[in-house]
Amino acid sequence: MYVFVYFQCFGEGSVAQLVLSGGKAGSPSTIYWSWGIGVTMGVYVAGGISGGHLNPAVTLAMAILRKCPWRKVPIYMLGQYLGAFVASVVVFFVYTDALNNFDGGVRETQGSTATAGIWSTYPQAHLSTLNGFGDQIFGTAILLICVLAITDGRNMKTPTGLAPISIGLVVVAIGMTFGYNCGYAINPARDLAPRIFTAVAGWGAEPFSFRDYNWFWVPVCGSHFGAIIGSIIYQLCIGLHWPNENEGTYKEKEIVADDEDQSTTNTVPLQPLIPLTI
Amino acid sequence: MYVFVYFQCFGEGSVAQLVLSGGKAGSPSTIYWSWGIGVTMGVYVAGGISGGHLNPAVTLAMAILRKCPWRKVPIYMLGQYLGAFVASVVVFFVYTDALNNFDGGVRETQGSTATAGIWSTYPQAHLSTLNGFGDQIFGTAILLICVLAITDGRNMKTPTGLAPISIGLVVVAIGMTFGYNCGYAINPARDLAPRIFTAVAGWGAEPFSFRDYNWFWVPVCGSHFGAIIGSIIYQLCIGLHWPNENEGTYKEKEIVADDEDQSTTNTVPLQPLIPLTI
Amino acid sequence: MYVFVYFQCFGEGSVAQLVLSGGKAGSPSTIYWSWGIGVTMGVYVAGGISGGHLNPAVTLAMAILRKCPWRKVPIYMLGQYLGAFVASVVVFFVYTDALNNFDGGVRETQGSTATAGIWSTYPQAHLSTLNGFGDQIFGTAILLICVLAITDGRNMKTPTGLAPISIGLVVVAIGMTFGYNCGYAINPARDLAPRIFTAVAGWGAEPFSFRDYNWFWVPVCGSHFGAIIGSIIYQLCIGLHWPNENEGTYKEKEIVADDEDQSTTNTVPLQPLIPLTI
Amino acid sequence: MYVFVYFQCFGEGSVAQLVLSGGKAGSPSTIYWSWGIGVTMGVYVAGGISGGHLNPAVTLAMAILRKCPWRKVPIYMLGQYLGAFVASVVVFFVYTDALNNFDGGVRETQGSTATAGIWSTYPQAHLSTLNGFGDQIFGTAILLICVLAITDGRNMKTPTGLAPISIGLVVVAIGMTFGYNCGYAINPARDLAPRIFTAVAGWGAEPFSFRDYNWFWVPVCGSHFGAIIGSIIYQLCIGLHWPNENEGTYKEKEIVADDEDQSTTNTVPLQPLIPLTI
Repeated sequence: MYVFVYFQCFGEGSVAQLVLSGGKAGSPSTIYWSWGIGVTMGVYVAGGISGGHLNPAVTLAMAILRKCPWRKVPIYMLGQYLGAFVASVVVFFVYTDALNNFDGGVRETQGSTATAGIWSTYPQAHLSTLNGFGDQIFGTAILLICVLAITDGRNMKTPTGLAPISIGLVVVAIGMTFGYNCGYAINPARDLAPRIFTAVAGWGAEPFSFRDYNWFWVPVCGSHFGAIIGSIIYQLCIGLHWPNENEGTYKEKEIVADDEDQSTTNTVPLQPLIPLTI
Repeated sequence: MYVFVYFQCFGEGSVAQLVLSGGKAGSPSTIYWSWGIGVTMGVYVAGGISGGHLNPAVTLAMAILRKCPWRKVPIYMLGQYLGAFVASVVVFFVYTDALNNFDGGVRETQGSTATAGIWSTYPQAHLSTLNGFGDQIFGTAILLICVLAITDGRNMKTPTGLAPISIGLVVVAIGMTFGYNCGYAINPARDLAPRIFTAVAGWGAEPFSFRDYNWFWVPVCGSHFGAIIGSIIYQLCIGLHWPNENEGTYKEKEIVADDEDQSTTNTVPLQPLIPLTI
Repeated sequence: MYVFVYFQCFGEGSVAQLVLSGGKAGSPSTIYWSWGIGVTMGVYVAGGISGGHLNPAVTLAMAILRKCPWRKVPIYMLGQYLGAFVASVVVFFVYTDALNNFDGGVRETQGSTATAGIWSTYPQAHLSTLNGFGDQIFGTAILLICVLAITDGRNMKTPTGLAPISIGLVVVAIGMTFGYNCGYAINPARDLAPRIFTAVAGWGAEPFSFRDYNWFWVPVCGSHFGAIIGSIIYQLCIGLHWPNENEGTYKEKEIVADDEDQSTTNTVPLQPLIPLTI
Repeated sequence: MYVFVYFQCFGEGSVAQLVLSGGKAGSPSTIYWSWGIGVTMGVYVAGGISGGHLNPAVTLAMAILRKCPWRKVPIYMLGQYLGAFVASVVVFFVYTDALNNFDGGVRETQGSTATAGIWSTYPQAHLSTLNGFGDQIFGTAILLICVLAITDGRNMKTPTGLAPISIGLVVVAIGMTFGYNCGYAINPARDLAPRIFTAVAGWGAEPFSFRDYNWFWVPVCGSHFGAIIGSIIYQLCIGLHWPNENEGTYKEKEIVADDEDQSTTNTVPLQPLIPLTI
């Protein structure tokens, strides 16, 4: 029942290192690799116990795909938001001296000493809310398609112990390709919990009031939509086309009637060998 | 039957991120890694269904090597070109605000606000058509040799779930080493489909008329030649030298007589354990 | 009985290459990757013989967790400190001409020709001792949690031959994220042995007297605390929650009574399949 | 019998890309990763047929360790030098236009338009021959220790299909850490064959007369010494300490008497599961 958004430490830490060192101890690449390896480690740590649930949007999509029982969804989500909040506190304390040295104790969201971006994402000035929403939907959808492919036991048969690395590589690539617009949150807990942290830890209302309260909900909602859309795309294009499932539609109906707990039924054609979800 | 040039999104996205951020959110390395990881993910997603056919030149070479039935070639190719086109549209929409911010709405192929290079490849000014053609042949040949080695069940016995990562590394290395001349298309669909997209989406005839209509066909034709040459080199140097194939030449003749479908014959000495092809 | 802090060569060498080339032959990224791959190689080399004991703090934590017999602890630790010292000597000789070319033969700990940082870690000017201590505790704790997860046979079942790469990735990520404050020693041997080397090899008392003898013990003590804390966190949150251990508490008590050697008892529920420890 | 120094293309190509683009299409990191992935691919391609013999120094050390029959040594070595020469020719032709654009057709070994360094290694001005010799011995020794560890079936049991990636990572790390002095040749064929190529392809005597004919033999001889030393270190510290070899010394004597071909004897205690050698 201990679900960690463990990777959050690595991710936020890498941004902190780049920002607080004035660019001397990092580069864009170090941020992309850190978030990716952070996810890898999150799955290594939490994969055996919880299936690697690190992302509320993914958990919701998995529940809809019937790969995660609904009654576990609130517990996982609570753990994900709490974990991301705790990680934010930890990163704050590890870099507290560096932070004071950088901004002189005045916490800013914008400008040359802005540090709020260490914790949660802020869009480029040119990005419209609509484009940002699409960005989050697309980024999370592509994440889901890859994760579902990697953990689909009927696809490339990725060994369980290798899957965390493969999943980490997805996140590395998304950062390198779709990180420019608004920082590839693609995870509501990764973005909202640190935003709450910055709001209570000295940055004031700005993390939420940024753009007249018109931004903070975009990564949160967008990633939920994206996860569902990505799951549907994978199932339609790949997941439902495996040979031995041609007559599996009836069995799926059976499960719909019994959506309480997947562990009590033996007819789960959608169940992957490695039920990982980040 | 759903064949995606899924990796295209990652590849084009990484160039878009570098170009549109004015170099701030990327580096040459992020482009090379993104294209590579993109291929990795493309194989993870499409590998189980189609054997990872992402590249028309590779599909053609595989058909010639009798590792892919000829009747599937047109379907795969159609899927590859369509997939690359759809990916181009998606990247355009994800980065539409950033694009307008960067070029003020005027789409250019050359100059300081050129953005056509996000989608398809353009040669350096000093590169002759002949050298470019050789570059594409060589790059695709080296790709094929590596992919055939990685997926050859009698060579290093790469686990199926690891092969996508190994194949992605090939593409990373080709980008780092043979990307300077003309952007390592090494895949006709990856280059032609986005070129058509830019031509219809506002860049005008320039993507095709570049160099008096003397460039756009080079990556398309060169990669087909290169794939065939690379396949022949691998078969001659490695593929035909496995111990249990010394007397396999007769069996190969048999297959020549029955080139309709490899799945109906049990005597396919050239069939790899992991029939991946990108 | 041959325990090498083999990775130390790679780590120190990468800093030497960056510093002595004036930044031309490296970047922050090359340092992070080198330390990580160095750990990977250290585990590949020493993993089969000793379980990959490269870090005294980890060895101590493993002994406390009863995954390493206490009588081996002093031998391993001696080997770790000796290995790190030998690696420091080797790096010094490999880069002796470059060193003299860089600093004109005058060994400095601070300033524009400072080279002591090639061997051991020095904190940023703004970092308080308390924050540095916390940094080392946190960095080593996060290392332990990841290593214990990767080597826990009941978690993600990482193949033995892949584990060195996964463990190396942890170190890459820690460098990219928590390296700015004081150089992520997270290993007492990695930091103290090279510090002794620099003290005797021409840098004088400065490596120890830095900050009025108020720094050198921080990475040494902090990493021991961190390793113990990290181990406890992993055991509490993950290690003690595997299904077949619900009634394993009695057996654990038995082991407490017999803490001489784990290889003589068959009831070691905490024993991982891959007893790696770096 | 087809032995390729295939990786040479990737390695030389990456330097060419960095040099000829004036630094715009690469960075030190791309060179280190390319050489490493190049070795990975060389082992994937040649591993199944020849055990991945890409390095004459390693082949010699393997023959001394009785892991490669002596009669194959000259054939492998011939193939390695020929392969490296062919790769040099190929890279020259792929980058011929870029080369002429960069240096105006005047091939230089030193100065701002120097390009000989694309093919073979040249030391820093400050490096003495003695230090260079030590650098090559050390670099090759560390390579051998890692390769022998990775391919030692009794050590970490690296899967055959993963070993090429692990071996590539060694080369990445050596480049990042011991590449500054004189370019980490650590392979006589990789350095001498391209040097011969540049001498005959327009760079004149300079590639050999550099430093009064006092440099070109250093990487060649140093790497042979280093490979032998590294092999001895691994065998002394690790290879001879596996439990079931305590009484294996007699059997080893037997093999000494029959050094013609390892495949005809069943008592080869030093034989690794994966007889890879780069």
